[in-house]
Amino acid sequence: MAIQTMEELFMHGLKDIYYAEKKILNALPKMVDAVDSQDLREALETHRKETEGQVRRLEQVFENRNARPEGEKCPAIEGLVEEDEEIVGETGDGRVASAAVLADAQAVEHYEIARYGTLCTWAKMLGDDDSFSLLAETLEEEKNADRILNDLAKKEVNPEAVAR
Amino acid sequence: MAIQTMEELFMHGLKDIYYAEKKILNALPKMVDAVDSQDLREALETHRKETEGQVRRLEQVFENRNARPEGEKCPAIEGLVEEDEEIVGETGDGRVASAAVLADAQAVEHYEIARYGTLCTWAKMLGDDDSFSLLAETLEEEKNADRILNDLAKKEVNPEAVAR
Repeated sequence: MAIQTMEELFMHGLKDIYYAEKKILNALPKMVDAVDSQDLREALETHRKETEGQVRRLEQVFENRNARPEGEKCPAIEGLVEEDEEIVGETGDGRVASAAVLADAQAVEHYEIARYGTLCTWAKMLGDDDSFSLLAETLEEEKNADRILNDLAKKEVNPEAVAR
Repeated sequence: MAIQTMEELFMHGLKDIYYAEKKILNALPKMVDAVDSQDLREALETHRKETEGQVRRLEQVFENRNARPEGEKCPAIEGLVEEDEEIVGETGDGRVASAAVLADAQAVEHYEIARYGTLCTWAKMLGDDDSFSLLAETLEEEKNADRILNDLAKKEVNPEAVAR
């Protein structure tokens, strides 16, 4: 058994999201290219810059735990990105492609919200308040990015805002 | 291009989450078996029963769209479930395995929250209020399931509740 303690589980989670953030940094420019909505392109581009800062925060958390930053293959983000690439290959019309990419970007945000939420809880449990603060800062950014995408989803596909 | 209209994109999303729900129904009993926390076992078991109702609601939405219920392979849920199976194979201690499974259950909930949120927006856009109501009902259930898991995460791994 490779993971026997909560500290080891925390490190595993850290490597998982570090791998995921790098994968997202790589995927975002392709998502921008696939959409014709200027608002969505700008939102994704802003989030790409934010993601660079989130990677740096993770590297600081590795340092707090006296560990070298390294990723570990994350099947969930692989699946999420594969799903987006598939749909982009299947959607012809600009508006439909934009709606699909926006939905997939929200699915990615929600993956990150779940993982950062968990890492915050575990950092607190390990008594690592500095790492907690860094992870909590990113968690808020991810929630905010999802809110921006959500507002855009309603505006893009339905000019009359819908209750959600 | 196989998906040219918002109606077609909606149907694709419906098939994706229908496949995902079936996969989750299959994965949940294995997740229950992997944990020793009684509270978590009960929460996952309750959610399994809820998921059966969610599958029936999706079948009603297919009917509303005059379509036969069918799934379409969803790489995201495949990745999420694979990630959980991997960690269960690596965690020895009961408490650590419980924390890992709980985190993965939250990642699955967040995938569903993102997808049902999108489907609600698209159903509204298509003017299909009956489908919107069914999907919104499931969305609330998923958010509630995540809240229950979140409370449990704080209680399980850290008796002193942490701000999140």
